[in-house]
Amino acid sequence: MRILLVGAGGVGDAIAKIAARRGFFELLVVSDYDESRAQRTVDWIRTKHGDEVAARFATTQIDASDPDIVASVAREHGATHVMNAVEPKFVQAIFAGALAAGADYLDMAMSLSEPHPSDPYTQTGVKLGDDQFAQGPDWDAAGRLALVGMGVEPGLSDVFARFAADHLFSEIDELGVRDGANLVVTDEEGNEIFAPSFSIWTTIEECLNPPVIWEEEAGWFTTAPFSEPEVFEFPEGIGPVECVNVEHEEVLLMPRWIDAKRVTFKYGLGAEFINVLRTLHMLGLDSTTPVRVRSDDGPVHVAPRDVVAASLPDPATIGPRMTGKTCAGVWVTGTGTDGGAREAYLYHVSDNEWTMREYDAQCVVWQTALNPVIALELLATGVWQGRGVLGPEAFDAAPYLDLMARPESDGGYGQPWHVEDRLA
Amino acid sequence: MRILLVGAGGVGDAIAKIAARRGFFELLVVSDYDESRAQRTVDWIRTKHGDEVAARFATTQIDASDPDIVASVAREHGATHVMNAVEPKFVQAIFAGALAAGADYLDMAMSLSEPHPSDPYTQTGVKLGDDQFAQGPDWDAAGRLALVGMGVEPGLSDVFARFAADHLFSEIDELGVRDGANLVVTDEEGNEIFAPSFSIWTTIEECLNPPVIWEEEAGWFTTAPFSEPEVFEFPEGIGPVECVNVEHEEVLLMPRWIDAKRVTFKYGLGAEFINVLRTLHMLGLDSTTPVRVRSDDGPVHVAPRDVVAASLPDPATIGPRMTGKTCAGVWVTGTGTDGGAREAYLYHVSDNEWTMREYDAQCVVWQTALNPVIALELLATGVWQGRGVLGPEAFDAAPYLDLMARPESDGGYGQPWHVEDRLA
Repeated sequence: MRILLVGAGGVGDAIAKIAARRGFFELLVVSDYDESRAQRTVDWIRTKHGDEVAARFATTQIDASDPDIVASVAREHGATHVMNAVEPKFVQAIFAGALAAGADYLDMAMSLSEPHPSDPYTQTGVKLGDDQFAQGPDWDAAGRLALVGMGVEPGLSDVFARFAADHLFSEIDELGVRDGANLVVTDEEGNEIFAPSFSIWTTIEECLNPPVIWEEEAGWFTTAPFSEPEVFEFPEGIGPVECVNVEHEEVLLMPRWIDAKRVTFKYGLGAEFINVLRTLHMLGLDSTTPVRVRSDDGPVHVAPRDVVAASLPDPATIGPRMTGKTCAGVWVTGTGTDGGAREAYLYHVSDNEWTMREYDAQCVVWQTALNPVIALELLATGVWQGRGVLGPEAFDAAPYLDLMARPESDGGYGQPWHVEDRLA
Repeated sequence: MRILLVGAGGVGDAIAKIAARRGFFELLVVSDYDESRAQRTVDWIRTKHGDEVAARFATTQIDASDPDIVASVAREHGATHVMNAVEPKFVQAIFAGALAAGADYLDMAMSLSEPHPSDPYTQTGVKLGDDQFAQGPDWDAAGRLALVGMGVEPGLSDVFARFAADHLFSEIDELGVRDGANLVVTDEEGNEIFAPSFSIWTTIEECLNPPVIWEEEAGWFTTAPFSEPEVFEFPEGIGPVECVNVEHEEVLLMPRWIDAKRVTFKYGLGAEFINVLRTLHMLGLDSTTPVRVRSDDGPVHVAPRDVVAASLPDPATIGPRMTGKTCAGVWVTGTGTDGGAREAYLYHVSDNEWTMREYDAQCVVWQTALNPVIALELLATGVWQGRGVLGPEAFDAAPYLDLMARPESDGGYGQPWHVEDRLA
């Protein structure tokens, strides 16, 4: 396996660092618009693991917005797999470039949605991933695989859902992805500050788009942002967090392969973050349309959302000042394999202290990066095989979760996951 | 009287329009950095009142940041009075320019404060107006008057305080300025939108600076922003509004001329606006320090606060889509002239429907502009006389309030004010 990794931001960097401990690939080319970022990643790997490991890595410059360039870089390095680790707005270009180069493709976020033009909070418009699934026949015909939504959420959450359907439940009422954390960031003086652990730009996009829900009868439909608030109790000391419906890929992926009466995604934003997003929206500061603003160099035009992002700490830099854990999982309700009612939360927790120590990566970013590496390993070893445009739940979940949980000393990733039964 | 009006923004425009109905001055020169704004004001006066009235107005360009230019424009037009109607950051330049030109001076906001360097939420640093009062001896020696803080708040509020001290109370416990409104702004479709009726830039400055309080024993001291919230009941249908301490000129002015045990300013921001300001502060979007932001023309540097201001509707343009009233006043407690306990709210209400119909000016801006015109008239007629740097409470309040309340048909401004006794 020869991997072209597109993007050496937080998640791309962590993908390369996690892969450096594994032997399943021949070459991993770290590429970025700014090649020095790719170089920094490979330098870290060389310092941590030595020249022999670093020899399986290369760096290159890439423009992820141009499918021809993506294809030509992939061909140049003989890439068998293109791993997309940049912002979702580049999905289409990298997706097309990989197919043109005859490579398989993985991403962690799918092609973007567009709200329904007249009824956005009831009906779907263009859905997440629609553009990619529309090209499924091309991938199938070419005998190539596009494994879409293969991060942590979507990604690990979809694997959990498949595992629950295959091994824990005979009938599923709801697959409810629930994501929450107790992360706290402090400034130099130790005072708690507001510093989202994930791109605020993407978070605004996710949270202010109409959330999508799937139901057996109704199919896909949307609601107003922040709908159906619930306090979900997260495990391992994280505790209760206010969660609301958010537009997310799982809702578009799971119903295609798994039988369930309802599929939802609720994000544990917490009351403070929800208030921030509502306020930004009320003030128009979520907008991506440039406004004219005075500056010392005369009037300029900037998108308010870019200014919000520029005013906050870079999520990639806050790891050392962050404490706490993040939890990704699926809350499944229905009938267990024994025929009785069952409610179970399948989850994985990532602790920032550990990810910083082991990988110099903050835990949200690291947890996202872990999963595509596991998937690549299963594809490299032939445990997972497929063609066309497929989600993670199209594959057998058991070997995935086994490889993930098994100790590193036994060839696994040493990342245990858990099933918490919640029915009294 | 020959007046140089510096600034033809919302308040400057309304000052000229209000003055156009009065005969006390010989010439009013409307000046602005953008002379077309001044021209627009005079064009409105010509259309509304005819050539004869408009003949007492002129326009010119001015750079309010340069005292030499202010002085030279004042001399050129033989200005006897310089009326400052621009942002407080230009106070020092216009103040100096007026004195250099040998003119009297009026403003509606005083020289800016600087927080205490180590203990900002307990101790004052540089206070509002400190820089101006320090130059009092120069004005006194020159035989010239600087009447500072002569808008509605500060301004009318200080006149009310002086009136209460002279005519309603024998001893004052607290002079509590209380400002509130029930203004609502709607978009084209009639949906309520967030659109502050006053410059958000200035509002952030006022509300996030440490609020200042004066007490007989302690003198001036500060608190954390938004301290001492209280729900104040405003008259004429406005109703209850949540008010909090805010840094404001009255607290610096009133104790210099009026005996009171305590002086406070609370602004009826309402819970929603307080939340907006807190959120902007938490995100660093109140900052005036430029941040680097991507734009279609490459990276640029903009101050987040300027972007917030640019993203919201221009307060000068929302009048036609606004409904409601704004109330300015002083809540006075203590001992009445009859020796019994007394609590009274002295106030003036401005109704947006009326100010739009009569002046094409929204009510908050119009109410601010009304007061310096009344003061100029009292100075022109010699009813008010003084030298040095003085606040409105240094002058007799009775003729001011009489001129304000008397019907236009009887030579007044037709703006009644009220005393509401609140002690059961």
